[in-house]
Amino acid sequence: LLSDTGLATAGVAAGIKASGRPDVALMVAERAVPVAALFTQNAFAAAPVLRCREHLAKTGGLARAIVINSGNANACTGAQGEADALAMCRLTAELVGCAVEEVLCASTGVIGVPLPFEKLAAGIRRAHGELAVSREAAKRCLAAIQTTDAFEKQAGGSFTHGAHTLNVAGIAKGAGMIEPNMATMLSFVAFDAKVGPAELSQAIRRIAAGSFNAVHVDSHTSTNDSFFLLATGSQEVAGWEAHVAEVSERLAWLIARDGEGATKVTRIEVRGAENDATANEIARTIAKSALVRTALFGNDPNWGRFVSAAGNSAHVRVASEVSCVLLGTTVFERGEPTVFDKAQLSRALSQTDDVRLELQVGPGPGRATVLTSDLGYRYVEINAEYTT
Amino acid sequence: LLSDTGLATAGVAAGIKASGRPDVALMVAERAVPVAALFTQNAFAAAPVLRCREHLAKTGGLARAIVINSGNANACTGAQGEADALAMCRLTAELVGCAVEEVLCASTGVIGVPLPFEKLAAGIRRAHGELAVSREAAKRCLAAIQTTDAFEKQAGGSFTHGAHTLNVAGIAKGAGMIEPNMATMLSFVAFDAKVGPAELSQAIRRIAAGSFNAVHVDSHTSTNDSFFLLATGSQEVAGWEAHVAEVSERLAWLIARDGEGATKVTRIEVRGAENDATANEIARTIAKSALVRTALFGNDPNWGRFVSAAGNSAHVRVASEVSCVLLGTTVFERGEPTVFDKAQLSRALSQTDDVRLELQVGPGPGRATVLTSDLGYRYVEINAEYTT
Repeated sequence: LLSDTGLATAGVAAGIKASGRPDVALMVAERAVPVAALFTQNAFAAAPVLRCREHLAKTGGLARAIVINSGNANACTGAQGEADALAMCRLTAELVGCAVEEVLCASTGVIGVPLPFEKLAAGIRRAHGELAVSREAAKRCLAAIQTTDAFEKQAGGSFTHGAHTLNVAGIAKGAGMIEPNMATMLSFVAFDAKVGPAELSQAIRRIAAGSFNAVHVDSHTSTNDSFFLLATGSQEVAGWEAHVAEVSERLAWLIARDGEGATKVTRIEVRGAENDATANEIARTIAKSALVRTALFGNDPNWGRFVSAAGNSAHVRVASEVSCVLLGTTVFERGEPTVFDKAQLSRALSQTDDVRLELQVGPGPGRATVLTSDLGYRYVEINAEYTT
Repeated sequence: LLSDTGLATAGVAAGIKASGRPDVALMVAERAVPVAALFTQNAFAAAPVLRCREHLAKTGGLARAIVINSGNANACTGAQGEADALAMCRLTAELVGCAVEEVLCASTGVIGVPLPFEKLAAGIRRAHGELAVSREAAKRCLAAIQTTDAFEKQAGGSFTHGAHTLNVAGIAKGAGMIEPNMATMLSFVAFDAKVGPAELSQAIRRIAAGSFNAVHVDSHTSTNDSFFLLATGSQEVAGWEAHVAEVSERLAWLIARDGEGATKVTRIEVRGAENDATANEIARTIAKSALVRTALFGNDPNWGRFVSAAGNSAHVRVASEVSCVLLGTTVFERGEPTVFDKAQLSRALSQTDDVRLELQVGPGPGRATVLTSDLGYRYVEINAEYTT
């Protein structure tokens, strides 16, 4: 839980969501701490994303507080949206007693609708009044960042390094979009080690590459996707990055698991490519194929789809160098089908929500792993039936 | 019909398909005629594709006959598959009385299963015996290239240019894959004008760019995709390319319409990009989004998905330059939502199978159109329920 890293948190219901569920969250550190963040590359980046980029540039990667609302993405909302994002930070800064640049913000929910700012402001005030470094407060904070997630996503752990204990905790809001245009992924990971802003902003790219940036649910990046990484500690702890990466990978897995209507997560591991970048492209080509994702939903060990999806990448050129292993069973070897028990493998697929699909594509050193969710009826229902 | 272009055709049931439906087709010209072809770029290109590439290279773009089977793709079948593809051409060459290089071949159906060659050979012999330049024969030929298409795809017309009449006829086998691994698109377009092989092989790229290469159903190119263009005539006819392009575009539209479980075809037109290539990339990014395609299935005028899909392209950078028009209604203008009657537009979407989605992305001269099918329950059923 975030409280293990020393953060004070809060979560309240401010009436932004029609359901009356919690929708305003606040995280406050004892002092301004190093924060790195990665944001959507979408041209329609939401107002809070634009605001955060500006604040992080001004502070050089420090923040005291993060204020978040769910139920409304404040995206495609024009000049009013930008003013609202600033006002949201300004109010939080006044309450916390810090510079406005030391406040970051995030929003998730419906696109294209102005924020109900009076409700939000009242919620921020109430959340500030309830701030606490406690497990209960951390749970309320987690609840308030959800939109239509099927389950809450958190991960963390305590890791002992010599005399030091490192606490890492993360929460995320995933790819559930029952209402149209739910602007999607938010992740917050904190850990109580001392790390400088420059080091943190380099590490976040490596960590995201193996976690949040390795998830494919939709071939569609939302306007609000944000990943914040906070270093709240005052002591240096060697080896922190591996633990933070592990927690981030777990959160990413949970996001894929909650991909809309997903029944399983498939780890697509590509080896033998020319380099890691081409391995990544091959893995993404497979992860994006609707034919691959429906086969996984159907528990179908359909190597033809996996292999021909790989063959669609410009980086797979020699068919006879390609082998494919599904859940430990070799289904295609050096360019030709193998003999295997399809019924048994199909049964094995139906009995796990963590599928491993390995592709050897050549003799090269390049390797990459991406995660994808399967594509089933629920995905269509969720995304087609809820007409605006 | 292909017979209008002077081709002798045949289609017979040889027992390759368990259903007993027609599965061997033959097209024979009076003499070796210029043929251009485009094939899948997939690394696992099927044996008939490899064979055709070799024959066309040897003849410099001439062919006398094309022999086709459905029910088996002869893909991922190794050395035996390559021998079978050659034997298929050799038998046809003997029967027709031409060089083996003057015979092209195509297969469509299940991947990874050896061709039942004796059945196929008997079918080719019988088809040769039934060759005729007649509408009935052309219909049998069309029937024999189908696999699980919901309807037969043909297009054509007669066009008068001064003293000349140009006949254009095309048939296609589309993206229906009820059985797993159905290796997909085959298209054959013939026209009775005189065109040299070099001119033909340049024209086919332009024609395909606006037709078969503009269709997106799956983000997944099959191992067997082939488009053959035959110039059967002995008289030069000016302006033939526009008519052949028109017929090819109609066939491509029919293929998208028969996208698995599709209820409509959406033409995504992007304008204002830096150049045509970037416009094409933007249009493809939108066409590939599962969120866009499910919204279309749900008749949901969900501009947030269309616009944010465009925003995922690296070539869309200035949100305030983007406008979006759906079925003639402006739903997003210069970076901001418009006010429109959602219920009415949703109704209009539900009443057509030919949807036009226009995106203006900037002030540039680049433009492109791609076609996509929508993504509904039937797609999942077709692709998930038929376990190997």
